[in-house]
Amino acid sequence: MKVTVIGLGLIGGSIAIDLRKAGLATELVGVDLNAEHARKAVELGLVDKIQTEDKALHQADIVILAIPVNAMCQLLPAVLDAVKSTAVVIDAGSTKSLICRAVANHPKREQLVAAHPIAGTENSGPEAAFSGLFKNKTNIICEKEKSSDHSLEVSMRVFNALGLHTIFMEAEEHDKHVAYVSHLSHVSSFLLGQTVLDIEKDEKNIFALAGSGFASTVRLAKSSPEMWAPIFEQNLEYLSQALLEYIMHLQRFHYHLMKRDTKELNRIMSSANEIRRVLDGIELKTKSQSEEQSVEKQK
Amino acid sequence: MKVTVIGLGLIGGSIAIDLRKAGLATELVGVDLNAEHARKAVELGLVDKIQTEDKALHQADIVILAIPVNAMCQLLPAVLDAVKSTAVVIDAGSTKSLICRAVANHPKREQLVAAHPIAGTENSGPEAAFSGLFKNKTNIICEKEKSSDHSLEVSMRVFNALGLHTIFMEAEEHDKHVAYVSHLSHVSSFLLGQTVLDIEKDEKNIFALAGSGFASTVRLAKSSPEMWAPIFEQNLEYLSQALLEYIMHLQRFHYHLMKRDTKELNRIMSSANEIRRVLDGIELKTKSQSEEQSVEKQK
Repeated sequence: MKVTVIGLGLIGGSIAIDLRKAGLATELVGVDLNAEHARKAVELGLVDKIQTEDKALHQADIVILAIPVNAMCQLLPAVLDAVKSTAVVIDAGSTKSLICRAVANHPKREQLVAAHPIAGTENSGPEAAFSGLFKNKTNIICEKEKSSDHSLEVSMRVFNALGLHTIFMEAEEHDKHVAYVSHLSHVSSFLLGQTVLDIEKDEKNIFALAGSGFASTVRLAKSSPEMWAPIFEQNLEYLSQALLEYIMHLQRFHYHLMKRDTKELNRIMSSANEIRRVLDGIELKTKSQSEEQSVEKQK
Repeated sequence: MKVTVIGLGLIGGSIAIDLRKAGLATELVGVDLNAEHARKAVELGLVDKIQTEDKALHQADIVILAIPVNAMCQLLPAVLDAVKSTAVVIDAGSTKSLICRAVANHPKREQLVAAHPIAGTENSGPEAAFSGLFKNKTNIICEKEKSSDHSLEVSMRVFNALGLHTIFMEAEEHDKHVAYVSHLSHVSSFLLGQTVLDIEKDEKNIFALAGSGFASTVRLAKSSPEMWAPIFEQNLEYLSQALLEYIMHLQRFHYHLMKRDTKELNRIMSSANEIRRVLDGIELKTKSQSEEQSVEKQK
């Protein structure tokens, strides 16, 4: 099948690699506003060639969009306009409500599958792309009742080829949960990095004193602002709620700290320790899934 | 040399393992208030035997304390009272000002080396101990002018055997920097975990939606409250400053988010991206140190 990938960064590039590997894409065409990224994507073999949007959309069987979510809202209606009537369009945006709203009344809405494959690293651009990024990760499809059976079926072939496990959710519900479980982590990490850089003007102290714990908590502060600013803005309402609750928890902790109320600090931390069960569960899930897969391979 | 380790958890246990491996400890005696930890430490071979504090201190050449920092302040004077005049006492506490103050006027102060080997994981107890925990990590010695040359020399043999790189710092300066670079990371992680657990009462959503980014930022929320509550309390003043600055950064970010000031959000995140250089530096440092060591081994 002819696959067109719009946006040749970490997400788009990694999708391209694994769709070719799985044999699902027989021709891969890339589109990217950034000429340097486009050139690099061909050089790295992520796509076979670069074309203008018009040409690339006209002949594609599958179109995958992996661009910042604000650009997604602007571009999606025109993409649906341009594709042939049998084509399937998949958007891989990290927010879903505004994107779904942007095409809610589009006559070709049923050709779109609104998805969120939850995977990534703190790196960006075509050079950050790699095979296996999506393996054993979760994919969310929103408003599945608005996609045709054909679109869903073709998109599931794409998601399965990437190793994703797909579940279904309402767009609003999706946005609310990712505000807490993903977006808040990024904000907390960006500002933790900022706070430390602000104080430790002489970086030799960070070098000497930072342990693996610090590196772990600020890892996400390396993420791309161009990608995240539009996500935060599109998910403003839920992210704002999450941020206010986080700030409230921090202030309450500060209050008990200043009162030297060790018992209460202990209680708060013991309660936060419960996250261990969740994290162990995530590890367990990934593990049992890879075992499952290796059993399947042996068959 | 006869080494006594007081506190047989992650830190004390890991020190014991590597001092035996290096041939520096010919006899290892353990002391722990927790009978179950004591039993386990012998079973795991971390120490040869368990003795009462009195007995264990009397004959020791080196005494290492790896207990919560509040217990450290209480116990240290009595430990110095009990050891023989040629013994060297090392405290491995994560705060240094109050610990140094607790023994400031002790007649045997010069037998103590106040240190902070900066290493750890989110796990605790004797079963969490492992060989190599301290390899290529930084060790801080505070108030080195108050330790005798003999004490410093013996302690350096211990720190070198563990693979630590030692630097010197004032106790207040140490406490200020670790508030930002270590303690704040732990608080932010504990409360991020708490915020998410608070909202996501139905944990299936965390399981499904959490990516590796979330796992990375909340990893430290698994840490031991019994260890961290006393650290936070002892470092109350600097940690409070760090927390207030972090909260201020979060609130400022929230303000610009609500104003949909994407340009300013971008600027803040780009500035936080600078942490990449620091983190790369930490990785590079660790890497070049291991290369250095493998070159030394080849000699």
